Amino acid sequence: MSHPLLDKHRATLDAALHTIQTRGYWSAYNEMPSPKAYGETAAQDGLAAFKAHLGSQFELNQPGQIGWHSDEFSPYGAELNVQYPECETQALIDAALAAMPEWQALGTDGRTGVCLEILARLNAQSFEIAHSVMMTSGQGWMMAFQAGGPHAQDRGLEAVAYAYREMSFIPETSRWEKPQGKHPALVMDKHYQVVGRGVGVIIGCATFPTWNTYPGLFATLATGNPVIVKPHSNVILPAAITVRTIRQVLAENGISPDLVSLCVPANRDVTQALVTHPDVRSIDYTGSNRFGQWLVDHCRQAQVYAELAGVNTIVIDSTDAYQAMLRNLAFTLSLYSGQMCTTSQAVLIPAAGIQTDDGHKSFEQVCQDLAGAVTGFLAKPEVALAVLGAIQSDDTLQRIEQASAGAMGEVVLASRALENPEFPKARVRTPVLIACEAQDESHYMHEQFGPISFLIKVADTTAAIALTERIVRTHGALTVGIYSQNEAVLDAMTQASWNAQVALSINLTGGVFINQSAAFSDFHGTGGNPAANASYADSAFVANRFRVVQRRAHPAS
Amino acid sequence: MSHPLLDKHRATLDAALHTIQTRGYWSAYNEMPSPKAYGETAAQDGLAAFKAHLGSQFELNQPGQIGWHSDEFSPYGAELNVQYPECETQALIDAALAAMPEWQALGTDGRTGVCLEILARLNAQSFEIAHSVMMTSGQGWMMAFQAGGPHAQDRGLEAVAYAYREMSFIPETSRWEKPQGKHPALVMDKHYQVVGRGVGVIIGCATFPTWNTYPGLFATLATGNPVIVKPHSNVILPAAITVRTIRQVLAENGISPDLVSLCVPANRDVTQALVTHPDVRSIDYTGSNRFGQWLVDHCRQAQVYAELAGVNTIVIDSTDAYQAMLRNLAFTLSLYSGQMCTTSQAVLIPAAGIQTDDGHKSFEQVCQDLAGAVTGFLAKPEVALAVLGAIQSDDTLQRIEQASAGAMGEVVLASRALENPEFPKARVRTPVLIACEAQDESHYMHEQFGPISFLIKVADTTAAIALTERIVRTHGALTVGIYSQNEAVLDAMTQASWNAQVALSINLTGGVFINQSAAFSDFHGTGGNPAANASYADSAFVANRFRVVQRRAHPAS
Repeated sequence: MSHPLLDKHRATLDAALHTIQTRGYWSAYNEMPSPKAYGETAAQDGLAAFKAHLGSQFELNQPGQIGWHSDEFSPYGAELNVQYPECETQALIDAALAAMPEWQALGTDGRTGVCLEILARLNAQSFEIAHSVMMTSGQGWMMAFQAGGPHAQDRGLEAVAYAYREMSFIPETSRWEKPQGKHPALVMDKHYQVVGRGVGVIIGCATFPTWNTYPGLFATLATGNPVIVKPHSNVILPAAITVRTIRQVLAENGISPDLVSLCVPANRDVTQALVTHPDVRSIDYTGSNRFGQWLVDHCRQAQVYAELAGVNTIVIDSTDAYQAMLRNLAFTLSLYSGQMCTTSQAVLIPAAGIQTDDGHKSFEQVCQDLAGAVTGFLAKPEVALAVLGAIQSDDTLQRIEQASAGAMGEVVLASRALENPEFPKARVRTPVLIACEAQDESHYMHEQFGPISFLIKVADTTAAIALTERIVRTHGALTVGIYSQNEAVLDAMTQASWNAQVALSINLTGGVFINQSAAFSDFHGTGGNPAANASYADSAFVANRFRVVQRRAHPAS
Repeated sequence: MSHPLLDKHRATLDAALHTIQTRGYWSAYNEMPSPKAYGETAAQDGLAAFKAHLGSQFELNQPGQIGWHSDEFSPYGAELNVQYPECETQALIDAALAAMPEWQALGTDGRTGVCLEILARLNAQSFEIAHSVMMTSGQGWMMAFQAGGPHAQDRGLEAVAYAYREMSFIPETSRWEKPQGKHPALVMDKHYQVVGRGVGVIIGCATFPTWNTYPGLFATLATGNPVIVKPHSNVILPAAITVRTIRQVLAENGISPDLVSLCVPANRDVTQALVTHPDVRSIDYTGSNRFGQWLVDHCRQAQVYAELAGVNTIVIDSTDAYQAMLRNLAFTLSLYSGQMCTTSQAVLIPAAGIQTDDGHKSFEQVCQDLAGAVTGFLAKPEVALAVLGAIQSDDTLQRIEQASAGAMGEVVLASRALENPEFPKARVRTPVLIACEAQDESHYMHEQFGPISFLIKVADTTAAIALTERIVRTHGALTVGIYSQNEAVLDAMTQASWNAQVALSINLTGGVFINQSAAFSDFHGTGGNPAANASYADSAFVANRFRVVQRRAHPAS
């Protein structure tokens, strides 16, 4: 029971299946926004497609439409004014459920093929999506292209590969033949049907509207479920483009497009009614702990896959490449103004300072040198603007101001506002660095989202490792890092990472950064600490999104 | 990183891995209690081992022991008087967590090998375990041997195979090498550590103290977690024997035996403190909906895998083998006095009767004939006693009496008490059959555990299928069945089984019964309706019991 679209994309699927098991480098979608990769006119076509959305009604032809919704805001200060269809929740759910049997009937191969075709189409739209991600999330252009386009598509493909692997273990039929000694064997013919759980709701975040959305979206879809995408209220366009493309591919393949829809709720009550609806059986969420915990507490009818906040931590014990370490950290703290769920927030430094290839450095010296490295890295305006992007939320802006004003500890480096000539209203801010004592937990012991990092004076490396473990166990983290030349220290930090169940990066001094997570190779989140109850992507991320319903009968005689 | 015990049992594991994917008949452990299979002296040795437990202290050498506990009750009226160690919960948890790192360090192959060795040892104890299952649960001897011994071991092996498959997808290391055009590639060496979640608690039930315990126990253990087994307070001995054997094999392999312990709580408060303990990260439960729902509501720190109650349903539309159908049903309703979670409770029959190879049969005639089939099947005392076993709980006894007294509808067949010459105090009861109308939902629309079945008059087959779907969606079921010679009816019932996510058996008229579920081939429970939120066994049953913690660094230059 193969499918033409699976045949078409078989090589991509096979490579993905191979790589999730070997976990080397591989990518299905080119991360360079080059004419060679995407075609001579791709850049201008994508920009034109993006601009055509502005000030327009984004038609999706969804059922139950009751109006148009528009309140997106651009951190770059651009006027977007895209209007999205507002639809009755029950109409979306009814239409989604009505489409489910034909999606189920397509089988594992057919659904996988359609998902792969969708990803290929989205890849071809990478420029259009990149502009929409940039202008809604505030990411810089290159990040918006890479993380919003090919890297997000890779994460979607990764979820499809896991789903395919698990579903393809289920045979369509079996013959069960139990010997009965001298009597004839007992014989049963059995059928096994992979069946989705029900409607899946995907709740997007404001900073990575595709990267954090595609894993849950494609895991839910591939396993036989309808999907309702509920983007962040300020960051809708990337999701709307994605949903429109999915609906188009579905329709081309004889599946009702209403299997996947966009939900732009008028208010919070509508959102809450959606996620607590009895037909909603899974929710994928990225965002704040508060709403995440609300979902877990109130959406008991659904499996909730939540990526929440955390306090990502780095321990600096010693280094043989001091300047390279500082450059690496400066990039990490600056990238997208620290608005990544993987950005390091707590940098733990022994009170007695650290040993380096450039001699001993006191705690204060490390603070000053890191501040200098950030300032130096951002000295050229074109670099700074490209790396920093813009500040997505008012809350983050306020936190930056508070931190820079000294409300969170001693200001080692204050944030600066930069001018962006191309977007004069863009709100661009450089990182703020705060020095504090380990006991000042009220400042650093919860997520301070944005470009705010704490350089924390700890008694010694042993205390830093213990504090890391406690931070992660109690408040969660997606990443921790260590710089050390001491094997015993690295072993202790490794053990702490196992205890707290968090991914560890060791001595990053080159072109890999702690806040980066590579599809097919790096597990994003372990699912084992409070920052996330699931990982992108693994078997657990897909295996409970479908069930197997069997039937059995004796063979027709 | 192989392990001698994995090498020893490699053929068993390979066969299990093959069969969970092809789902034909296979069993690792012989279901015949024969000298040929188990050795000339196995039967008498097993009986002697069982008898040696009676009236004795069951020494386990567990930490934190504060006394001895004894309140087991035998449905056969036998005197057991085994005393079990009562231990402080915190001591068990502390010791379990202390043993966890060495268990983790053994790796996937080592843990799998140890689990396979444990299963082999348990298999060699099948007679001892069978007597302990029989005398505590009230099962007949042959069921106690098969379901309590080899079939339970098969289910445990199945869980180990799923766990091994999922864990062995995780490579121990990878080299990630990302090309950088003309520049040197970015290279990272990555390590991936499979890490358990924390203490797993296995809560046993009173009727299948090993069959329903081994899947969760071995899934939890194989994935790197310590286990605390909390058996039903009346049915402890099979779990105690199991735990002792596990502890012995662990100790032989240099692992602290306290990785796995038996918890016999003095009262309900102790149980609740155990299951809500923050270090308990998974709970496997079989039993009543009430406590199951309590666990789900209160044990938010843990993943709860719950097999609860349901209303298993059969639709009779038509048959070409009327007498064979009646015999098959009579066996199903009688086996272990209907004290199986898979026993059919609601038999839906069209008001206008059914077509059979023996002509048309009215609703009333079908009721009478089924009653006659049950009576006939149980006519020989030796057959009746072997099949029925004894009634495990006082609650079930009372329900039987109420049903037989007409409290639940028209009595078609009243229950009878039978004498068991070997066990004069055994409480043996034959099934009770009740006829009622479809609208009498208050009687049949919730689980009436035990040998109580309702023959329900429905408008027609279409209504019967619709009622089946509604019953399963709202109250859950582990099994549904249909008898029909009409393809359209079978298709409609198949669709209903998909909608309600329940396993379907079609036209069983031979030696396979709807209440039987074969390891490696039949999924027990779908996890998709209220009777169970998980299945024995599938990827979802194991994949979230461990997490992967990675670390990465540039290669040493």
